[in-house]
Amino acid sequence: MIRHLLHVDFQPGRGLQEQVRETLVNAILSGIFAADTPLPSCRQLASQLRVSRNTSALVFESLVNEGYLISRPRSGYYLHPDYHEASPAAVESAPQREAAAPRWGDRLQMTPSQQESILKPAGWMHYRYPFIYGQPDTRQFPLATWRSAANWLHGGVRDPAWVIDHIDQDVPMLIEQIRTRVLPKRGIVAAPDEILITLGSQNALYLLTRLLLSSTTRIGVENPCFREAINTFLLADAEVVPHPVDEEGIVLNERPCDYYYVTPGHQVPTGVTMSSARRRQLLEHAARHDAVIIEDDYDSESNFTLNPLPALKASDRSGRVVYVSSLSKALSPGLRLGFMVADPDLIDEARALRRLVYRHPPTNIQYQMAHFLAQGHYETHLRRYHYDSAQRWERLHAALQRYLPSCRALAGSEHANAFWLQTPAQINTQQLTWRAAHAGVLIEPGARHFLNAAPPDNYFRMGFHAINPDAIAQGVEVLRGQLEQMG
Amino acid sequence: MIRHLLHVDFQPGRGLQEQVRETLVNAILSGIFAADTPLPSCRQLASQLRVSRNTSALVFESLVNEGYLISRPRSGYYLHPDYHEASPAAVESAPQREAAAPRWGDRLQMTPSQQESILKPAGWMHYRYPFIYGQPDTRQFPLATWRSAANWLHGGVRDPAWVIDHIDQDVPMLIEQIRTRVLPKRGIVAAPDEILITLGSQNALYLLTRLLLSSTTRIGVENPCFREAINTFLLADAEVVPHPVDEEGIVLNERPCDYYYVTPGHQVPTGVTMSSARRRQLLEHAARHDAVIIEDDYDSESNFTLNPLPALKASDRSGRVVYVSSLSKALSPGLRLGFMVADPDLIDEARALRRLVYRHPPTNIQYQMAHFLAQGHYETHLRRYHYDSAQRWERLHAALQRYLPSCRALAGSEHANAFWLQTPAQINTQQLTWRAAHAGVLIEPGARHFLNAAPPDNYFRMGFHAINPDAIAQGVEVLRGQLEQMG
Repeated sequence: MIRHLLHVDFQPGRGLQEQVRETLVNAILSGIFAADTPLPSCRQLASQLRVSRNTSALVFESLVNEGYLISRPRSGYYLHPDYHEASPAAVESAPQREAAAPRWGDRLQMTPSQQESILKPAGWMHYRYPFIYGQPDTRQFPLATWRSAANWLHGGVRDPAWVIDHIDQDVPMLIEQIRTRVLPKRGIVAAPDEILITLGSQNALYLLTRLLLSSTTRIGVENPCFREAINTFLLADAEVVPHPVDEEGIVLNERPCDYYYVTPGHQVPTGVTMSSARRRQLLEHAARHDAVIIEDDYDSESNFTLNPLPALKASDRSGRVVYVSSLSKALSPGLRLGFMVADPDLIDEARALRRLVYRHPPTNIQYQMAHFLAQGHYETHLRRYHYDSAQRWERLHAALQRYLPSCRALAGSEHANAFWLQTPAQINTQQLTWRAAHAGVLIEPGARHFLNAAPPDNYFRMGFHAINPDAIAQGVEVLRGQLEQMG
Repeated sequence: MIRHLLHVDFQPGRGLQEQVRETLVNAILSGIFAADTPLPSCRQLASQLRVSRNTSALVFESLVNEGYLISRPRSGYYLHPDYHEASPAAVESAPQREAAAPRWGDRLQMTPSQQESILKPAGWMHYRYPFIYGQPDTRQFPLATWRSAANWLHGGVRDPAWVIDHIDQDVPMLIEQIRTRVLPKRGIVAAPDEILITLGSQNALYLLTRLLLSSTTRIGVENPCFREAINTFLLADAEVVPHPVDEEGIVLNERPCDYYYVTPGHQVPTGVTMSSARRRQLLEHAARHDAVIIEDDYDSESNFTLNPLPALKASDRSGRVVYVSSLSKALSPGLRLGFMVADPDLIDEARALRRLVYRHPPTNIQYQMAHFLAQGHYETHLRRYHYDSAQRWERLHAALQRYLPSCRALAGSEHANAFWLQTPAQINTQQLTWRAAHAGVLIEPGARHFLNAAPPDNYFRMGFHAINPDAIAQGVEVLRGQLEQMG
């Protein structure tokens, strides 16, 4: 008998049984067991892997039940005949590269990897003071209620409806929850055929870009800006027209654009909330010049302002505002759920385009989220999330006032989900970022948010959701030390 | 005290508690309860809704715990002060449409809703004999093992890694499972940086279209064809060049194309498996003319042929084959999981484009699928699925031979997941489909699979996964009746 040396690097936090099973399935499917030799016995396996005999017996039993192994009385466990020739010969004979590969550089119609975009250092979570933006504190995720929604999804019913696809219609229960529960908080009234579920707000921006923009389109944007939106518009070769941002939001000029892309709730990256006066002005300007406004309300769910203004869309009297938002930002960016509200004609085309792009957002997540909303769990989570965000904001605000009074926080950062800061003029924030990272502090240099030919290099952004709140003050103090050494 | 009339249309198969809770949360958030009036008591609610007092007590308790309600001793349950002004005034004052809406027709850069595509009648599941293609029998979904993967995902760990996003990298565990478990079965050897996770194979086709095709590109396709792929290529205004299909697959001609899109496993819609000779010919042709082949191996997981040929990609010596496949086809089309295997340079650009299109496939599904694969549950499911598919295929095959011998089944339908059939020449299958539907039989007319100017109208397709296997023979008999009335 061949003595198979099975080994598992047991990982804490995962079940022993599942890890033992994974190892055995792996060995079976990769063909390391011979056809007519018994596998290690229950006892041998238990002692080799230092697990209880009970654990190894349960694993063997499940593998027999599912047809990987057969059990021969008084002899042991053997491979099921299906696995007698498991290791596919094809793999061993796979051809080596011989001929010249195609020159991909000549074939690519675009090279999106060359665009400027926000990069997070790999392993940001291992930094001591990660003041990065856009990543959650995973410990805040409402695991218990989310799990209960999963149990509902996978519960009793033998015939799960979410297995089939939903190409021409979204999950009605989720549309209804958005329509009656999410939108009213923002002052928006919409019919079901005015709503499309998307994979986050980014996906809505992409679909709109493809449907509406071309090389002859002028799209007005804020400057500094949300870079990934600009990158998306550039895919259609649209003319991107930067507009400055003041303390009331985007500053319009004489020459009108066909589209305006704005972030009225909290401008990205400055955090400015567009004033009521500026909103009125923008809506009037759009009506006068037959322009369309794309409102990216990415942070309405994570907005912890006490009395936030309604969405711009709430005041839209002519269907000129296309509204884009996210359901996963305050919950889990990994989930990718968002939606768009617009004229039914536009929604129809967006749905038809979505069908070719990826068909539809995964049906199981749509059902699970719908249940999570209907049960009020989402509201419960948002309440905690807002409270926690406000605490974090206050802590960072106080630390900045204490340690970095010279870095003026723009008024706009009021209750935004990040601080947009300006160093004394001589400090280059790219260098500051580099030095700070070596001291364990992650901040985000501001230059790449600007569309200027020579972007100012003395801005930076600090988020506060990924960092341990107790480390905030000390992180800012360390940052001050770095700044002083450069000054 | 106001007597609130709460009413629930209880749905079977859902928990009573969750439905009662949903009704109460709904009422709270929509503002129907007054600030200083107690809610119905536990006893009242139970009697109104005809549920046990225990059920209503548990619901009230959970709503107090989560801050929706407060409990005043000897007085009852009241709204938490947060909800004293729940109904947002903004909604009531939402403006009516006043001004003229934008003319969307003038603005749309494309109208994908106008493309020909395969439509399934809404409510197909209510037909008695739904011989439709591409929808699973939901009862076959491996709910127990999928649920156990969900439990793993949501289990013990307080700090779920899948909450954060994965923009620049896919979930390593899933990549590894695909690389070491899925690809070897098809003879493909790939490095991790040659694999990109996509939202199904359709999504891979879309990304490739955007990256590689333009209005000056010629792409050779099979005719009849997979219509949604063609529709995707047309988004880039590429020149789509139809090639006939014979019993060995695509028939090449003299004038080379820049790209070839093929479905070698089972051609869509005919079910022809591309022969080894034709595969060699295609690879040589591509190398000679510097063409690239897009291999859509959409059905490798659902392929129940006993000894399927390896993928075309397995014989790719020059990196000219871009391989596209699905993980959800045989499991649940609703899940939307697929992948692409290609040169790392191309994968890099596809990932950068994906970032703008929707960022990344939902992280939780990636983790859950990785675990499902690692535990061998996917293999177990495929084994059952193949067995079941073979049974269904045999039943439909036998019924067709018995009742519809005049409708020649092309040789290609051998163990494909649908039958591609040809009626005697005078029968128009569009009419047949219409008549059959009225008799409860859903089939799919074949004309829209052809790219010909005047497509032949005597082909049709029959799938066999959505129908109850015991209804197959009778369904074909009913279809014969309809056919005879037309003949």
